[in-house]
Amino acid sequence: MSDEQELGITKSKEYNTGEWYAEVVRKSGLANYGPEGMSGFIVTRPRGYALWESVQNFLDSEFKKTGVQNAYFPLLIPESYLEREKDIVEGFDPEVAWVTHGGHEELEERLAVRPTSESIIAPYMAQWVRSHRDLPLRVNQWASVIRWEATETKPFFRTKEFLWQEGHTAHETRDDAWDETMTRLSQYQSLYEDALAIPVLRGAKPDHDKFPGADTTTTVEALMPDGKSVQAGTSHYLGTSFAEAFDITYTDEAEDEQPAHTTSWGLSWRSLGALIMTHSDDQGLVLPPTIAPEQVVIVPIWQADTQEKVLDYAEGIADELEDAGVRVELDDRDERNPGFKFNEWELKGVPVRFEIGPNEVDDEVVTVVHRPDGETVELDRENIAEGVQEQFDEVYAKLYAAAEENLESNVREASSRNEILGTIGQHGGYVKAPWCGDESCEEEIKDQIAAEIVMVPLNDEDAEIHDGEDCAVCGETADETAYFAKSY
Amino acid sequence: MSDEQELGITKSKEYNTGEWYAEVVRKSGLANYGPEGMSGFIVTRPRGYALWESVQNFLDSEFKKTGVQNAYFPLLIPESYLEREKDIVEGFDPEVAWVTHGGHEELEERLAVRPTSESIIAPYMAQWVRSHRDLPLRVNQWASVIRWEATETKPFFRTKEFLWQEGHTAHETRDDAWDETMTRLSQYQSLYEDALAIPVLRGAKPDHDKFPGADTTTTVEALMPDGKSVQAGTSHYLGTSFAEAFDITYTDEAEDEQPAHTTSWGLSWRSLGALIMTHSDDQGLVLPPTIAPEQVVIVPIWQADTQEKVLDYAEGIADELEDAGVRVELDDRDERNPGFKFNEWELKGVPVRFEIGPNEVDDEVVTVVHRPDGETVELDRENIAEGVQEQFDEVYAKLYAAAEENLESNVREASSRNEILGTIGQHGGYVKAPWCGDESCEEEIKDQIAAEIVMVPLNDEDAEIHDGEDCAVCGETADETAYFAKSY
Repeated sequence: MSDEQELGITKSKEYNTGEWYAEVVRKSGLANYGPEGMSGFIVTRPRGYALWESVQNFLDSEFKKTGVQNAYFPLLIPESYLEREKDIVEGFDPEVAWVTHGGHEELEERLAVRPTSESIIAPYMAQWVRSHRDLPLRVNQWASVIRWEATETKPFFRTKEFLWQEGHTAHETRDDAWDETMTRLSQYQSLYEDALAIPVLRGAKPDHDKFPGADTTTTVEALMPDGKSVQAGTSHYLGTSFAEAFDITYTDEAEDEQPAHTTSWGLSWRSLGALIMTHSDDQGLVLPPTIAPEQVVIVPIWQADTQEKVLDYAEGIADELEDAGVRVELDDRDERNPGFKFNEWELKGVPVRFEIGPNEVDDEVVTVVHRPDGETVELDRENIAEGVQEQFDEVYAKLYAAAEENLESNVREASSRNEILGTIGQHGGYVKAPWCGDESCEEEIKDQIAAEIVMVPLNDEDAEIHDGEDCAVCGETADETAYFAKSY
Repeated sequence: MSDEQELGITKSKEYNTGEWYAEVVRKSGLANYGPEGMSGFIVTRPRGYALWESVQNFLDSEFKKTGVQNAYFPLLIPESYLEREKDIVEGFDPEVAWVTHGGHEELEERLAVRPTSESIIAPYMAQWVRSHRDLPLRVNQWASVIRWEATETKPFFRTKEFLWQEGHTAHETRDDAWDETMTRLSQYQSLYEDALAIPVLRGAKPDHDKFPGADTTTTVEALMPDGKSVQAGTSHYLGTSFAEAFDITYTDEAEDEQPAHTTSWGLSWRSLGALIMTHSDDQGLVLPPTIAPEQVVIVPIWQADTQEKVLDYAEGIADELEDAGVRVELDDRDERNPGFKFNEWELKGVPVRFEIGPNEVDDEVVTVVHRPDGETVELDRENIAEGVQEQFDEVYAKLYAAAEENLESNVREASSRNEILGTIGQHGGYVKAPWCGDESCEEEIKDQIAAEIVMVPLNDEDAEIHDGEDCAVCGETADETAYFAKSY
């Protein structure tokens, strides 16, 4: 295969989103599929893992500022532990990978590769919590989990093994635990809006779609360009049900024993899927400067007689940017022409390109090109490190504005079953409709066009409540607003 | 159980090292044992995990400065992949945890929970390397691995699941790959000597004890206070054997196809075991300030009439240290007396304690107490953030010097079988002896006192070579120097 074929994206984002996405992931060097016979597994290459590290750094820092400590619990969980919380085991049993042998011996009890860790973390929280002085208790784990789903692999979106963090906390009161649930949801929102340039909606999952055993499952939802919603992070208020199942109790100030209120919250590398899908285009990957592994690529353009002066100038700029903490790459390869380099770095998603030829040297400027819209700006050589930060901000703002425009123009209202079906069928996106709260009304929509209720607005937020109107599907009295959408 | 019993270490480091170690790990809050029925697994609590994060930060930064990128490969490896490199499968087959079922289905091929990842990383390196321009290729993975050994659990030292990093690289030439092997060994040495306050010895494993398939296995070895050696990190030059088994080839400048020279190198949370074992004492955990989660604890000492002025003064100091980047904890709990707090923070391994009473406030000083030797120093309130750094350096130097003294006084020479046995039996530590290179001579020693050859000095280092002398065990001609020791 020639380099040119390997570099070009051949599928269209607009008309063939699935294959386009797979091509961008592979050709921009983010991930490969797993070995033959291991569908559902991917190999995360350095460029892809660097994005995950950026997500980790952002969240880990926010978590630590707000009282969370990291810990590590065993990868394997005895089957009897999973069974202790029957709701969990019912939720995950069909998706568990089971270890049955250790070396040449068959195990007495088979062990689950963790699908989530509530059932092994809760018993330890029960040991560690004795008095109200031990609360709140907050632990987080960065780990891989396995859920054996037999669906088509889509890197970062749908994989049997995925990387995530799972936080688990215990509190004295319902209010404390609810505040915790909201704190983590806000941090997830901030990751998307402040680092990944993706606006999100906040809401709760319908009761029939909650995390098994949870009192309330809250979610941030991101709208993809193909009109489908991504569940982009979830934060669960678990009430006292886990505490009661696992004896997480504390003595209060009056020396009475009380069950703790617990939460759990998780965000996975699906966030990378949303990132890639949202911003990238038919030239390849597009990344916001906040998390791009290289924020600037410098492409020097020379002839034999100008090579030395162009390269000297370019190196000086690269050094200055690096000293200022900018992630910069100087592409001084001799065997490639500038056009080839432009294409390659566009494919790889570098948000800002500096083009430097003899004219730029003479005029003491650099030519700056934005990814993805190709906007070109001339920047003074002086104070280049400050100047480039403004360019980063502009690129970020453009990416965010485009995603926001997509979201805002794709939340529509409907007041009848046919209107829901027609609107989603024609436009995709979200359709808000009054809803009675009954799962069967969602089923009717799901059966027709595979759309579901991805969220209902949270009561404590500025949400439009259709209280007292008629359910758009069955006509009974509605008491909430449902957001219907097709979903990843 | 009263707090006092829970806080005190009851076993002696000198006379009952094993139980003392387990008690320090548990009571200082580093780790708990895994669930019933899961011997060999541990739960790493936040204080323990914070130490692992320090090790990660140190090494990850060194790796990235020297061309390494992180990646992530599947947790599960098909059996046929392991079998492709027969040396690996022979080495690990008895220790593999096998996944045989996904959900309710039995898998067609069983999958190993990774015991190490050469067999799944190498085929991808083969895909990614085409030309000499793709070399060197360096990937590292932070991950958990499982080796199903049926031995007694010793947290961080011997666990069925452990956390580690494994680096894998490919190079054009033997020299490049050997340099890589040495670079990583030096970074491991630096972790121990510059961050963990533990001097180490560098060497190679005897041929019969190499990593399966390796050309040379190099090691850093740390001497524990009980006279046993810990294999504290290993770096393997793999020659071209993995490249040949997995087709990692490149075209050189003359367009000829060549096998790559590869390396792998790994360091696990055993480093934490060595850290805890080396410095801690009968009062509990001892940590160097470089990696302690809290570097300074401030214990205010007040009566009712001095409480306000003491606390104000202490808070001012805590704020100033925090602003200067010092990890500081102000223990202003009302319900505990200072003596209780001293004991608790000593148990938890905080290297520097500030005692602040009314006298300190009046004199504008703080009383500083070093852990572990209790040395007391008075420090001026002015420039406290600079002053405390000197205290950190002093504490570090004391810890290092004690470990160095232990190492230096426990490398002895022997020239006969009985001298080896007697010296190790009486003193522990290392015994250097001329060795013919034959495994059977090691076996003779091993059978008698469970000591083995933990390393032979590397030829390119300033090592005493007993070339031409008689092997201390069999009397044949020796061509190397063996370091015998009991080993963890």
